[in-house]
Amino acid sequence: MNKEQLTIIKIGGNVIDHQDSLNNFIADFSAIKGNKILVHGGGKLATALSDKLGVKAKMTEGRRITDEETLKVVTMVYAGWINKTVVANLQKNRCNAIGLSGADANCIRSEKRIKADIDYGFVGDLTVDSVNVEFFKTQLGAGLVPVICPITCSSDGILLNTNADTIASALAVALAAAYKVRLIFCFDKKGVLKNINDDNSLIEKIDSAYYFQLKKDKIIFEGMLPKLDNAFKALENGVSSVSIGLAGSLNDIILNNKNACTTLVG
Amino acid sequence: MNKEQLTIIKIGGNVIDHQDSLNNFIADFSAIKGNKILVHGGGKLATALSDKLGVKAKMTEGRRITDEETLKVVTMVYAGWINKTVVANLQKNRCNAIGLSGADANCIRSEKRIKADIDYGFVGDLTVDSVNVEFFKTQLGAGLVPVICPITCSSDGILLNTNADTIASALAVALAAAYKVRLIFCFDKKGVLKNINDDNSLIEKIDSAYYFQLKKDKIIFEGMLPKLDNAFKALENGVSSVSIGLAGSLNDIILNNKNACTTLVG
Repeated sequence: MNKEQLTIIKIGGNVIDHQDSLNNFIADFSAIKGNKILVHGGGKLATALSDKLGVKAKMTEGRRITDEETLKVVTMVYAGWINKTVVANLQKNRCNAIGLSGADANCIRSEKRIKADIDYGFVGDLTVDSVNVEFFKTQLGAGLVPVICPITCSSDGILLNTNADTIASALAVALAAAYKVRLIFCFDKKGVLKNINDDNSLIEKIDSAYYFQLKKDKIIFEGMLPKLDNAFKALENGVSSVSIGLAGSLNDIILNNKNACTTLVG
Repeated sequence: MNKEQLTIIKIGGNVIDHQDSLNNFIADFSAIKGNKILVHGGGKLATALSDKLGVKAKMTEGRRITDEETLKVVTMVYAGWINKTVVANLQKNRCNAIGLSGADANCIRSEKRIKADIDYGFVGDLTVDSVNVEFFKTQLGAGLVPVICPITCSSDGILLNTNADTIASALAVALAAAYKVRLIFCFDKKGVLKNINDDNSLIEKIDSAYYFQLKKDKIIFEGMLPKLDNAFKALENGVSSVSIGLAGSLNDIILNNKNACTTLVG
């Protein structure tokens, strides 16, 4: 069977926090043909609102804790303001978006993170069967474009703050049986750079053998490691390709133009 | 053709503001069989958040104005915190809720209220073709339970604060061609009372002739007039019945038990 294409794109705070870059991204995203899903992260607005309300960021052993007040703030900001302004802007661009948290239609189930030594608060982790595949197939089949915020829900009805990268990967893997999935992470660099200080040192394509070499040579390290490990795991689980690049280059990324981003292949 | 039943229920702040009454309502609502839609209003949380943030309620000639900051607050509270906590609680009760603003899937389109003399700010009015009937039929057909917050969207992508009673009525009328619609408004009284100070003076049934008489006798006046005028307009436009009663009596209302609420019939 020839599978239909599905494009899943994740954007983070660096896009959401700047009205111009968000508007440009929304115009480019709206123009993408075929099935698509947008996953968005948080941005600075939640921190700004917490500050204004005097909700202090709680930390335990260097890790941020999502307490009850923080959960309220992120739910208001991510599921409320950001999700609905993005959806409204997509609608304006004739992209039939539908904004969703994981609680809606039980579409992304999670479990409260439990670790013996640290209480992370209201943080959700995904499991292998987190994604409600039938729901997404129905929505996509009806021509709708799901726009997912990083708030999910446990089976006992608790809202949980959840990593948006993880949601995007989980969606890509879960939907790979039904679609030819292309996963694109938009972040604040052109892609994987040979020299982190030189934008002209973009590596356009990385396969698993080359990735092994790049890690060995310490060209990929620190923050990029979990991102790329995650991406290769998605490729191992049926996702066709994973690209990493700038939201501002989305058109070039979609068109597979030269020098547009880093694309990972299995 | 025998139409399927559809129950549309609107709850206001008096239910949302109290955790116990909300929990009871959610348990009762979850138990209702067949197609159903929940429309929720705002409650005190938006005012409390505005106060904390120092966003002052703007008034013009006694009317509240939704300025940009207020729009942000109500979108965060209505579409974010209230909508998602209600959806999560319904999911916990095995009711497959999907939370929506009017922007989502363009399901309730509105127009910014324009009056020559007063600028109401970001307030939306509905028109005869505001409701995306096909979308709701698809969602209901898939066994989903739409939970609508009172934020809608204009065709140029502007989010607008919208009256929840009006949304509930507009949904009821728009879906009356496809379903046998029962519309229930939950408010802070048992229903229409002959004597506003006597809960035992409930009027159980009002038809249009009796309504004419009650208005003439000044038994119905002030705040109840627009509510009931609206309800009779819904009945004239194909809605089967409109009931008004306490959220705490939802079970009795659904079962048509004696003395449970006021039911209006055409």
